[in-house]
Amino acid sequence: MAIKPVELSKFYRLANHGPTTLVSAKYEQNQNVMAASWVYVLDYLPVPKMMAVIDKQAYTRTLIEKSGYFAIHIPVAQQAEMVINMGQGRREHPEKLDQTEFFYQDGFDIPLVKGCAAWIICKVIPEPDNQEKYDLFIGEVLGAWADDRIFENGHWKFDEVSDELKTLHYIAGGQFYLTGKGLNVGHGPA
Amino acid sequence: MAIKPVELSKFYRLANHGPTTLVSAKYEQNQNVMAASWVYVLDYLPVPKMMAVIDKQAYTRTLIEKSGYFAIHIPVAQQAEMVINMGQGRREHPEKLDQTEFFYQDGFDIPLVKGCAAWIICKVIPEPDNQEKYDLFIGEVLGAWADDRIFENGHWKFDEVSDELKTLHYIAGGQFYLTGKGLNVGHGPA
Repeated sequence: MAIKPVELSKFYRLANHGPTTLVSAKYEQNQNVMAASWVYVLDYLPVPKMMAVIDKQAYTRTLIEKSGYFAIHIPVAQQAEMVINMGQGRREHPEKLDQTEFFYQDGFDIPLVKGCAAWIICKVIPEPDNQEKYDLFIGEVLGAWADDRIFENGHWKFDEVSDELKTLHYIAGGQFYLTGKGLNVGHGPA
Repeated sequence: MAIKPVELSKFYRLANHGPTTLVSAKYEQNQNVMAASWVYVLDYLPVPKMMAVIDKQAYTRTLIEKSGYFAIHIPVAQQAEMVINMGQGRREHPEKLDQTEFFYQDGFDIPLVKGCAAWIICKVIPEPDNQEKYDLFIGEVLGAWADDRIFENGHWKFDEVSDELKTLHYIAGGQFYLTGKGLNVGHGPA
């Protein structure tokens, strides 16, 4: 397997199906990873954008506010337990990152969790009203990468991979659904 | 089957897994339905909210702006062709609604497409900057309903229903994935 860049014009395909995500951020020597269901595509052209709802309680939020950057991860089914662990607060569970293996992409000082299907690095577009009223952070997408076993040449390969490598959709109370069977109804919009 | 109300405290479970949606709106005698992938949960307490990215070209957008209301639908796999059709512009394809069967919920003059898994009616919370800059409409959720074959007592029943009744996750180019297998990893956050 290889981690390959995804064209920015097609980055939205990584998150268009509504998967559960992890969000990481780093400021100086402090870093964190949190589970986040409410992380969304906002735009793809001319400026690709994502948005994330990040609670005021979240330690990661402080890191995002101070650094101005965040990284979105699309985890896979074999990481489901880890995703639930990352849903715990860093302050109450400082050990939650102890087993996490990180890597970095050139030019970005932001930790990325190994083993996910895809990663999207964003720079905050400051919108103080949205951040305060709605806990909503908007980010310009600076780079996107995917595991080529699972996403390649602009397409997901969910009909080829084993369940362990399918992406996750969280409901509540520990209940996820995996991304399921493909259905192609011919020509549809981008 | 019966269409049953969903408690507002749990409405977010209808959309938390990131399904593709339809959005409808009505103003005076004009109504429309559009397919929309970028329709999202924003909050559940104390005021339940959804948000929707609606392009300036969309006829439905005018109806939402004039009426102040929109309805979100969660369609199912057997409606996939219809969802693609509803992705066509109303102005170029005025016939696209000809075969659509609508129903109404008491107290709301907004057409709902039959045969979906769930419906969520929202009242616009005016945010002119978000609407103009990001095509982003925020709505307070006033009511939510679901087909009890597919969602009941606060839980999806995807592991019980046939593929035709599973919800859809759109990528691009007519490619959907169905919501897949359940995976429960024990106690997780709401």
